[in-house]
Amino acid sequence: MGALKIGSGHPIVVQSMTNTDTHDIRRTLRQINQLTAAGCELVRVAVPDQAAIPALKEIIAHAPVPIIADIHFDYRLALEGMKAGAAGIRINPGNIGGKEKVSRIIDMARDKGVCIRLGVNAGSLEKDLREGARRKGQAGAMVASALRHIAFFEKKKFANLKISLKSSDVRQSVLAYQLLAQKVDYPFHLGITEAGTLVSGAVKSALGIGLLLYQGIGDTLRVSLTADPREEIKVAYEILRSLGLRRRGIEIISCPTCGRCQIDLFPLAQRVEKAVQRYTEPLKVAIMGCVVNGPGEARDADVGIAGGKGLGLLFAKGQQLRKVEEKDLFQSLLGEIEKTIQEKN
Amino acid sequence: MGALKIGSGHPIVVQSMTNTDTHDIRRTLRQINQLTAAGCELVRVAVPDQAAIPALKEIIAHAPVPIIADIHFDYRLALEGMKAGAAGIRINPGNIGGKEKVSRIIDMARDKGVCIRLGVNAGSLEKDLREGARRKGQAGAMVASALRHIAFFEKKKFANLKISLKSSDVRQSVLAYQLLAQKVDYPFHLGITEAGTLVSGAVKSALGIGLLLYQGIGDTLRVSLTADPREEIKVAYEILRSLGLRRRGIEIISCPTCGRCQIDLFPLAQRVEKAVQRYTEPLKVAIMGCVVNGPGEARDADVGIAGGKGLGLLFAKGQQLRKVEEKDLFQSLLGEIEKTIQEKN
Repeated sequence: MGALKIGSGHPIVVQSMTNTDTHDIRRTLRQINQLTAAGCELVRVAVPDQAAIPALKEIIAHAPVPIIADIHFDYRLALEGMKAGAAGIRINPGNIGGKEKVSRIIDMARDKGVCIRLGVNAGSLEKDLREGARRKGQAGAMVASALRHIAFFEKKKFANLKISLKSSDVRQSVLAYQLLAQKVDYPFHLGITEAGTLVSGAVKSALGIGLLLYQGIGDTLRVSLTADPREEIKVAYEILRSLGLRRRGIEIISCPTCGRCQIDLFPLAQRVEKAVQRYTEPLKVAIMGCVVNGPGEARDADVGIAGGKGLGLLFAKGQQLRKVEEKDLFQSLLGEIEKTIQEKN
Repeated sequence: MGALKIGSGHPIVVQSMTNTDTHDIRRTLRQINQLTAAGCELVRVAVPDQAAIPALKEIIAHAPVPIIADIHFDYRLALEGMKAGAAGIRINPGNIGGKEKVSRIIDMARDKGVCIRLGVNAGSLEKDLREGARRKGQAGAMVASALRHIAFFEKKKFANLKISLKSSDVRQSVLAYQLLAQKVDYPFHLGITEAGTLVSGAVKSALGIGLLLYQGIGDTLRVSLTADPREEIKVAYEILRSLGLRRRGIEIISCPTCGRCQIDLFPLAQRVEKAVQRYTEPLKVAIMGCVVNGPGEARDADVGIAGGKGLGLLFAKGQQLRKVEEKDLFQSLLGEIEKTIQEKN
């Protein structure tokens, strides 16, 4: 992956995948740039056919981050993808069409120093493993698939591998990674596949990826959402921050409000959240509705407000600064946030 | 909690809290009804002052689920809340104003068979514990606070307790519950406090609550979001379903799409998700963009489609039914979902 290191104790790498038509170079590069701006460190691009190869080459030449070529069914696309300059390729060896073709891929990957992800997915298991998956759960079948492929790669003395074992079932995914972690030592790419739309997909991804990271399993991750891929990056960093693994951007501590709240807190929290998206500095901002937990949270945050009746108490660095009228809360908060960021830099 | 059982191996109870003005009986009851329709089984209502007591009484009389009175600062509100018929009260004994007042609450709770939640929150720790929280982490301080109060309640021979230890820091919350679980055997109410806006709050809640449930800790839960409280219920069930603890409503398996997808999948997935919200039957519906994992996921789901070029393959009960033109996919999917639900009932 060039300068980007994955595994062996390096920080967990955040990645995503474009959902544009790969043949559309301009739109695909624009999405890669958007993802990179959001914190994405590695981008995967589907290579569905030969016509996508020249586009891939162009995309790789202009992308600000390493590009992984996502290959299915046709080993020639893997070879061409590597020639086009892909930093890595993702294959599911079960659908490449036999060992001879996989060998060709291995030979070129070795020559070019390209990393291969063995991307096992419960939705595309080899035929002979599907019945077992149905009867005994996907985890065992996914691990069996991975071990089979790993054995072949090891026989070919190729170790520049990453492994993923994705299912749309959180428990089966978690179990599969746990089982494989006991058997092999390759870097793991974590993800819950086909996790669903924004909120439910975020929940499933947080659970699956989070349970594994909490156990020390995982080296890179991709949150899969049926949503703008930039949302995947936000969710990824929210997971990493919550587990104390990486901090990027501003964390909003905000309350659900209740019958005690006397300011219009929801629009304020949403407005602040949107306004601070462009910052990468790791700050904590509390936006709280009342005096029960408000002052405590606002004091613990870098910047915060605790709402009262039509006003808010403004806090920064643990100190109460002043009372601010409700209509001025947004500007005051933003001003303190910017000041704090400047002081830190 | 009347017929609703919490703890001792009963199903994890899903709860939320109104964010309406409690004095506004009509709006508060409407929100309670909305929450109940979404699957909420227990609703907490803030009781900020004496004027809220008659409203609370009226709300309890008409609510379809047990009501918990949320009390801070004034022990008389706890007494009045119990007289008004609250099934439980939530207090933070540290802000009630001394043991004498807490004793009065205990005496009446015992008389009336009312459950008390000791709701420790990192944002409102007792003064003497705050310095320790700052230096050594909130978890230890929260546990110390809880143990102090539990000791007092046990001295008074009152055991109808639930405990919560909420922080906006996921790791501190998880650690606190883990530590307390080693020391006491009361039912735990789980939650990450002030978790933030919809998506980031869902991620933090899924991580904190999920890590604990996965370890067998927790009896009831409240997801806190700066959002419509019905979203809290959806997130709660998504967590429980993903961990195999409870199933309610329709799970959407949908892909993030990539350069291979040749149908407009995002609006379809969102439209289906919205249309099936009213169903409580636990079905799995797959909405997939291409032939890589599409047929596998669609076959594994109760109902599913796998997209092709301007069309989709429709699946039900593991069987491929027919090709459907893209413009008809929504209706066909919905038709199969309704048929499947009718057959199950």
